[in-house]
Amino acid sequence: MKRARRSFPADLRLVVFDFDGVMTDNRVWVNDEGEEFVACNRSDGLGLEMLRRLGLELLVLSTERNGVVGARCRKLGLPFEQGLADKAGRLRAVLDERGIDASGIVYVGNDVNDLDCMRLAGCAVAVADAHPDARRVADIVLTRAGGHGAVRELCDRLAAHLVRRRS
Amino acid sequence: MKRARRSFPADLRLVVFDFDGVMTDNRVWVNDEGEEFVACNRSDGLGLEMLRRLGLELLVLSTERNGVVGARCRKLGLPFEQGLADKAGRLRAVLDERGIDASGIVYVGNDVNDLDCMRLAGCAVAVADAHPDARRVADIVLTRAGGHGAVRELCDRLAAHLVRRRS
Amino acid sequence: MKRARRSFPADLRLVVFDFDGVMTDNRVWVNDEGEEFVACNRSDGLGLEMLRRLGLELLVLSTERNGVVGARCRKLGLPFEQGLADKAGRLRAVLDERGIDASGIVYVGNDVNDLDCMRLAGCAVAVADAHPDARRVADIVLTRAGGHGAVRELCDRLAAHLVRRRS
Amino acid sequence: MKRARRSFPADLRLVVFDFDGVMTDNRVWVNDEGEEFVACNRSDGLGLEMLRRLGLELLVLSTERNGVVGARCRKLGLPFEQGLADKAGRLRAVLDERGIDASGIVYVGNDVNDLDCMRLAGCAVAVADAHPDARRVADIVLTRAGGHGAVRELCDRLAAHLVRRRS
Repeated sequence: MKRARRSFPADLRLVVFDFDGVMTDNRVWVNDEGEEFVACNRSDGLGLEMLRRLGLELLVLSTERNGVVGARCRKLGLPFEQGLADKAGRLRAVLDERGIDASGIVYVGNDVNDLDCMRLAGCAVAVADAHPDARRVADIVLTRAGGHGAVRELCDRLAAHLVRRRS
Repeated sequence: MKRARRSFPADLRLVVFDFDGVMTDNRVWVNDEGEEFVACNRSDGLGLEMLRRLGLELLVLSTERNGVVGARCRKLGLPFEQGLADKAGRLRAVLDERGIDASGIVYVGNDVNDLDCMRLAGCAVAVADAHPDARRVADIVLTRAGGHGAVRELCDRLAAHLVRRRS
Repeated sequence: MKRARRSFPADLRLVVFDFDGVMTDNRVWVNDEGEEFVACNRSDGLGLEMLRRLGLELLVLSTERNGVVGARCRKLGLPFEQGLADKAGRLRAVLDERGIDASGIVYVGNDVNDLDCMRLAGCAVAVADAHPDARRVADIVLTRAGGHGAVRELCDRLAAHLVRRRS
Repeated sequence: MKRARRSFPADLRLVVFDFDGVMTDNRVWVNDEGEEFVACNRSDGLGLEMLRRLGLELLVLSTERNGVVGARCRKLGLPFEQGLADKAGRLRAVLDERGIDASGIVYVGNDVNDLDCMRLAGCAVAVADAHPDARRVADIVLTRAGGHGAVRELCDRLAAHLVRRRS
């Protein structure tokens, strides 16, 4: 059983993002050759840069195989891993490698394949338009939808949290 | 005359989807060379996979000629037929070939060229933003619009229905 | 001075459509090479086909130079003229060539460069999200926005009007 | 401290626009090769042309490096500078070069990297969906969102303002 919790971890070190539905609106534009476009939000860049300057580690974990995850993350300067069949298994391995306790991470997701990561994380965040099961498991549900300011909203709230704690 | 009916077939075997307006928001992005993109939803993939694991047969029938239907269906691992002038005729032939009774199928549509298939199917489903005539003929009208979670909503409801019946 | 009028012409022969903002949502997707995509609606095709079968002439007039107008109209089988600096002048010439009285046409527009054509037409129609000046001049304001079902809504209403008159 | 102010400058000479989030909806469509599309609005063109005819100078300043800013501005006939790390510094230099007082400019922005320019300008305008900090600093908050008519709304209001003053 996980404790009910409404605030960010005191010992926050790492913020982990799902990609589709969090950094995008979960839609995909497809043509007859299977080329794919996804719709991201320019406002995310300023927010993620702010978190980096505050010393947080950032990571994107995605099950999607299409290379668009990498293309977007490279532009934002975000470390990423994609094509993951088992995101929670990979997240556990990352925490081990870096010596980070699960209590010190925030995980942001939107669908049922995020539930294991959300249960593992010290603080689970869901975007406003997440699947009902993801909203139910979340400690915090954002007011903005994926691809429509959700990531920036979280960054603004995390930055305010860190500045308060450090002042 | 078709009986009024509000629930899924007891003997459900096959779920048939229209493509444009059901798996997409019915819009098409076009450039000056006639290249076309349509906007699908990543959340559909998880739902369709769930139905497959529960043993349901799935099929996409589309009148549209553009190859984007095939590109999307191949990615989702969905059988499809496109460029169909007469969807209902083709659906009848499919049922004959597979020995499936029309009472055992769900058909999901959004416009007047789906009406014959909807009248044929044991259970006719319309997306939230379907044409008024399609909503009128439907046994079930989804709460989500095409390309905005309609397919996933249906998958979640069908999966819950099947799990209840089998338990 | 134009008479206030709320219904379609009794002697309806020709329906003229602006393209951007009527057949699209007035947005344009652009990349770094200036390639442009616009977002049309699949539902328009069924409606326009219905009007054609009822014997109406259809025409698209656009000021836009980009070839996307032609690409879309060719797919829909619609006659079109684009790159027009003076749409009302061209419309008058078309009416002369075909011997059609302005009272027998419907013109659908969305912005101030449609006002002259709207004043000329026997029946001026504006999409729901048209510029205030275009809505003010319109005899009929549709309930659907451009690219989001406006054209189909008009086609359904025109078809019902014609069927009523002919029966 | 900046004076509270609600109207446009009496001595208006230059209107400066941020690009992403003002001329677009702040979203970016990305594929696996990092190709980017942004969604602009056709209605902006008519409004900007109106301002030019009224004798106003126009300028777009963007921090974004992607060439899409230039592609769009060239089509609209708008002078632009992009890839700017310090927009306010560049804006001050532009004013010096042209001998324009900051009190005579309108600046339209949507995010925290616009705040310095907004504080500098005689009249600071924010789009309806701007970041809360940008809305707070703005003299005028538009009723339309970026990429959804905000630029045109401003053009219509500026044109009415100029016509009133000159008549």
